[in-house]
Amino acid sequence: MTGNKRPLDVVILAAGQGTRMNSALPKVLHPVAGRPMVAWAVKAARELGARNVVVVTGHGAEQVEAALAGHGVVFARQEQRLGTGHAFICGIDALEDHAGADVLVLYGDTPMLRAGTLEAMLEDHRGRGSALTLLTGELPDATGYGRIIRDSQGDVVRIVEQKDATREEAQVGEFNSGVYLMDSRAAELAHRISNDNAAGEYYLTDLLGLYRAEGEAAHAFKLTDPDEVMGANDRAGLAELETILRRRINAAHMAAGVTLHDPDTTRIEDTVTLGRDVTLEPGVILRGQTRLASGVTVGAYSVVTDSVLEAGVVVKAHSVLEGAHVGAGSDVGPFARLRPGTVLGTGVHIGNFVETKNARLDAGVKAGHLAYLGDVQIGAETNVGAGTIVANYDGVNKHPSHIGAGVFIGSNSTIIAPRTVGDAAFIAAGSAVHDDVPEGAMAVARGKQRNLEGWSRRYWGGMRDRVQQKLPWLAGWLERQG
Amino acid sequence: MTGNKRPLDVVILAAGQGTRMNSALPKVLHPVAGRPMVAWAVKAARELGARNVVVVTGHGAEQVEAALAGHGVVFARQEQRLGTGHAFICGIDALEDHAGADVLVLYGDTPMLRAGTLEAMLEDHRGRGSALTLLTGELPDATGYGRIIRDSQGDVVRIVEQKDATREEAQVGEFNSGVYLMDSRAAELAHRISNDNAAGEYYLTDLLGLYRAEGEAAHAFKLTDPDEVMGANDRAGLAELETILRRRINAAHMAAGVTLHDPDTTRIEDTVTLGRDVTLEPGVILRGQTRLASGVTVGAYSVVTDSVLEAGVVVKAHSVLEGAHVGAGSDVGPFARLRPGTVLGTGVHIGNFVETKNARLDAGVKAGHLAYLGDVQIGAETNVGAGTIVANYDGVNKHPSHIGAGVFIGSNSTIIAPRTVGDAAFIAAGSAVHDDVPEGAMAVARGKQRNLEGWSRRYWGGMRDRVQQKLPWLAGWLERQG
Amino acid sequence: MTGNKRPLDVVILAAGQGTRMNSALPKVLHPVAGRPMVAWAVKAARELGARNVVVVTGHGAEQVEAALAGHGVVFARQEQRLGTGHAFICGIDALEDHAGADVLVLYGDTPMLRAGTLEAMLEDHRGRGSALTLLTGELPDATGYGRIIRDSQGDVVRIVEQKDATREEAQVGEFNSGVYLMDSRAAELAHRISNDNAAGEYYLTDLLGLYRAEGEAAHAFKLTDPDEVMGANDRAGLAELETILRRRINAAHMAAGVTLHDPDTTRIEDTVTLGRDVTLEPGVILRGQTRLASGVTVGAYSVVTDSVLEAGVVVKAHSVLEGAHVGAGSDVGPFARLRPGTVLGTGVHIGNFVETKNARLDAGVKAGHLAYLGDVQIGAETNVGAGTIVANYDGVNKHPSHIGAGVFIGSNSTIIAPRTVGDAAFIAAGSAVHDDVPEGAMAVARGKQRNLEGWSRRYWGGMRDRVQQKLPWLAGWLERQG
Repeated sequence: MTGNKRPLDVVILAAGQGTRMNSALPKVLHPVAGRPMVAWAVKAARELGARNVVVVTGHGAEQVEAALAGHGVVFARQEQRLGTGHAFICGIDALEDHAGADVLVLYGDTPMLRAGTLEAMLEDHRGRGSALTLLTGELPDATGYGRIIRDSQGDVVRIVEQKDATREEAQVGEFNSGVYLMDSRAAELAHRISNDNAAGEYYLTDLLGLYRAEGEAAHAFKLTDPDEVMGANDRAGLAELETILRRRINAAHMAAGVTLHDPDTTRIEDTVTLGRDVTLEPGVILRGQTRLASGVTVGAYSVVTDSVLEAGVVVKAHSVLEGAHVGAGSDVGPFARLRPGTVLGTGVHIGNFVETKNARLDAGVKAGHLAYLGDVQIGAETNVGAGTIVANYDGVNKHPSHIGAGVFIGSNSTIIAPRTVGDAAFIAAGSAVHDDVPEGAMAVARGKQRNLEGWSRRYWGGMRDRVQQKLPWLAGWLERQG
Repeated sequence: MTGNKRPLDVVILAAGQGTRMNSALPKVLHPVAGRPMVAWAVKAARELGARNVVVVTGHGAEQVEAALAGHGVVFARQEQRLGTGHAFICGIDALEDHAGADVLVLYGDTPMLRAGTLEAMLEDHRGRGSALTLLTGELPDATGYGRIIRDSQGDVVRIVEQKDATREEAQVGEFNSGVYLMDSRAAELAHRISNDNAAGEYYLTDLLGLYRAEGEAAHAFKLTDPDEVMGANDRAGLAELETILRRRINAAHMAAGVTLHDPDTTRIEDTVTLGRDVTLEPGVILRGQTRLASGVTVGAYSVVTDSVLEAGVVVKAHSVLEGAHVGAGSDVGPFARLRPGTVLGTGVHIGNFVETKNARLDAGVKAGHLAYLGDVQIGAETNVGAGTIVANYDGVNKHPSHIGAGVFIGSNSTIIAPRTVGDAAFIAAGSAVHDDVPEGAMAVARGKQRNLEGWSRRYWGGMRDRVQQKLPWLAGWLERQG
Repeated sequence: MTGNKRPLDVVILAAGQGTRMNSALPKVLHPVAGRPMVAWAVKAARELGARNVVVVTGHGAEQVEAALAGHGVVFARQEQRLGTGHAFICGIDALEDHAGADVLVLYGDTPMLRAGTLEAMLEDHRGRGSALTLLTGELPDATGYGRIIRDSQGDVVRIVEQKDATREEAQVGEFNSGVYLMDSRAAELAHRISNDNAAGEYYLTDLLGLYRAEGEAAHAFKLTDPDEVMGANDRAGLAELETILRRRINAAHMAAGVTLHDPDTTRIEDTVTLGRDVTLEPGVILRGQTRLASGVTVGAYSVVTDSVLEAGVVVKAHSVLEGAHVGAGSDVGPFARLRPGTVLGTGVHIGNFVETKNARLDAGVKAGHLAYLGDVQIGAETNVGAGTIVANYDGVNKHPSHIGAGVFIGSNSTIIAPRTVGDAAFIAAGSAVHDDVPEGAMAVARGKQRNLEGWSRRYWGGMRDRVQQKLPWLAGWLERQG
């Protein structure tokens, strides 16, 4: 009964409806901190090195299975809801070969349970050569939970439900989380569970008695933090889990040397990596595969998803980045939007109201104001004037453009793709560039200015009444013109 | 003394100054959750089906009366501040016909009191055939409040002020909220209140003794949630009420199937309607007559006022909508601004830095980047290029434009209103469209491009020193040009 | 030993490493509420009217000294970390003339300590003719702190460290903050401190015994709010200080008549001045030398730095202002960005996606949409059309432009600096203005429109397959064209 090399199979019970969610989405698919609750359980199972992961689906089975497609899990349908014991059998029987493996039972609605905790539980289970280990927690008042009754050796002898508890048992603070780690007999024993009870259900807790009938002692592994097995039954519960997870994640980042101006409004998904001396202003949201190198600052209310920010990057307030790579020492925002495929070199400057998409901007490029740079490569040190649009769309297709290094693009210019602009070219402000521009050339594509003297007097004179009502200075000027 | 058909008159006392608000605005006009405090009382009275609603004004009477103009209330001025009893008389005497009606006394600074609570109180009052019912609450420690002293029947016999309370009375946790429901004798009895007391004021609480002297028992209706009669005397108190109301509103939405990523930073006014499976990211603010159909998602920090979002609409982060109607399946933002009169059909796409105002965009229109669409109708499937401006203003008047279906508007174009652009027209990028465009035509209104070869060398050569200082790549290029 | 005219020298101990900060930045330079922690201590010393302020540096001394350069403080390096007593000697010995002065010992990591508290402590110290006054606090449970042991007179006789405390002493709630106020003998007495203890360190607390050996009684001045001497040892501690300071600042503003929709998400630096009836929506951040006159409203999530907003200004949501002066009655935003050097007259309107920098806009100027106004003066009542760019940059230099009063700038125009546009001039939409415009003239600088009939049929016909896939309306139209 020893040896750490035994394989581990994990059965995740995820068939419940979650009526109190009041949702078209199955309960276990409601996300917490950016990931569906059931996916947290799958993630924990993976991190434990599970051989097989079986997800038992029922309510909304198609949706749950679709959401977990590609996660490498086995699905087992629980067609009728006959209790947790029945759900477990559905799951374990879905495995072709369970022989010789330990089995861990997890739940689709307890996203806070850490892989590290389960690892310690597994070590404890195997270390003591246990046949059955229950994960338990302790609360000052465990009312509502099944209580753990131990014997004088500390072995678990019974689980007493609230309604069956004597006064003395009701004082017990140790409760059953429902997470079990069992040896390979679990599959066979589970089939012996009876539904001979008031509800006519098969209860997974009955395994305790069955193992004991086999002469095995049941052990308990007690959580340090009972919040880890907190589940969510409604949206308020979801929000509570979000808050606890946010605090847990933020505390870890702060300990590792990240400054959070306001941890209560800072949301960092657990997939995010942060370097030392990163500073996050209030309201920052970091999502997905985001990585911030050391010394990065992200300004208030910015949202960064799946992006890499190299050392010393400054993202100013109110910026939205997704799928972008920002080179060291660049500054971005405020009000910048970097979309997927954006790759900025070192020392690039992106200012306000600038959007980039599938755009490679080499070192030192500046695009400071009101621009759209889509499907374009821009060489080093090029200056993108305010109001520049790279017009990449012809109505059905997107076309790429290439702009060289050291180019000066005058304000309010339009580069009509597909276009090539050579190095050191100069585009006059207000030009609509519909031909390529050779290296070192100036392109002018705009009308020549004419000044029509005396025009305003006639124009405003023609609507003198309205001018007098709305534009006192201009009315006076008009008056002075006679 | 029974019968639910008796009319109900409501007197709202709103004459106080609220010195601790430290404000030019009368206390009762300070808003909580988007509505002046006194307007909450008026709203509750209306929901109760009140026949007459009298608002007793005093401090800042003109401002209060102006703020409530159009609410169908009667105003009564309390010219001198002689106590609550006097204020009540001012109010009840302002009614031409109060005979045969019940009267409810409310306050202009307790916005948390629910109509539902008052309805239950009214039902209780009438059910027991009560002449006087006091709304009371219970606190563990009611220090500072007037305490309710009951006899062995449970009838209220006295209200004892803090300073007059014996040690035993001070232990009483039941307190007087000041809200009274009385039969039609209240008007007459109130005139018997005396000001023969230390402060020389007329106290409304004296009605209790007067009713009892008439041989009537006074009953108490106890609040489940004593917070409902919480008032605000200063700005910190206002903020506290905001927080409590926000929690109350958010809890109700969550119970009804709305996901709030962070309820603590989500502000939803009580006039807002939300469908099932709506998701609100952190920091979202929903105001006024806003309605979100099921499945709508609103991104972080967006502010939506008086707008309707049909099923499945996605509003991305940092968007500001006001008075807009967004068709099913449309997506908006980030950094979008929809202003009043915006009507979007189904599947419309509005991207970043785009503003619409009095604009009707039919199904499938796309305006993805940096555009201003004002006073314009745009037909189905039209593509609005980046940087497009519909120039609707001539200096004093706004003019409308009509753009057909299937139009392609090239980037950085200007449509100078009033303008008509036919279906399937094509506008070349960078055009300033000053004439109408027929169906199926291409309009070009821009200069032709000329490339001046060798120009950059002369240009940068003329400021070689500065180039060498600031633009190393270009300095090298210049060097290579000889 | 009396007289309020004695000079005061302040020694700030700021040599510690702060390992738990896990940072490349020395601990005392970590900012709280926008100011490095040590700068709070310097500020308090200045407000007390200190003659000399000595900052004792050690870990990261160069960085600390650089950060405080220009603050008029004397730096003393503690080359070896031999204890607080040694640090104090390093500091006091750095003063050329300390004779006859009181000396106050402060710390670089307790930013919450108010100057007002220290002033009261100083008054108490001098009033009683005290030789040594300790600043103490009281906590229900002071575990971990050095406890204050007083004699029957109330004089302080000992400070007992946690590890040395008897059970009785451990019950004492009064603790030593480490802040001392001493007469001029402190410098001499400090040299008598011995390092004959387990740690081999020189402890500043030993001064208590040395003063008592001189026959002086030591007094304690007890803090009303023990939070004032809270320090930060890690980032979580920093965040906690931020929260406490934010609450303190916000409470003061609310008491003074400012409405905060959500005090928990409103951040106001202590350098900011707010008038009465200012309203701040959720998430507003006010920084630096910002001054808001009475009646100003700042919309949700706006960030205002070093800016002055005159009476009645409305800043709408999601605006970012820095170094701007906004005249009375102006409105700004949403999504506006005012950069340094922006000066707006009265009644100016700045709308969405508009950036100003070094721009003077006189009374009544309107720039409502998508514009960049850099290095420009604009006269009264001028209308800046949507999409206007003042192109101020030639690649290496910025140039100024002057635009007169009553000018109408058509949409999508570009003003190429340096440029002068006369009063009442009119710029046609879409113009690139490369010459000056005389007063009252209309400038047109764009191509003339040509409509090419039947063009769209050929264009879309050429990519009919893609049109059929992606653009059903247009496909139908094409069909109908035959």
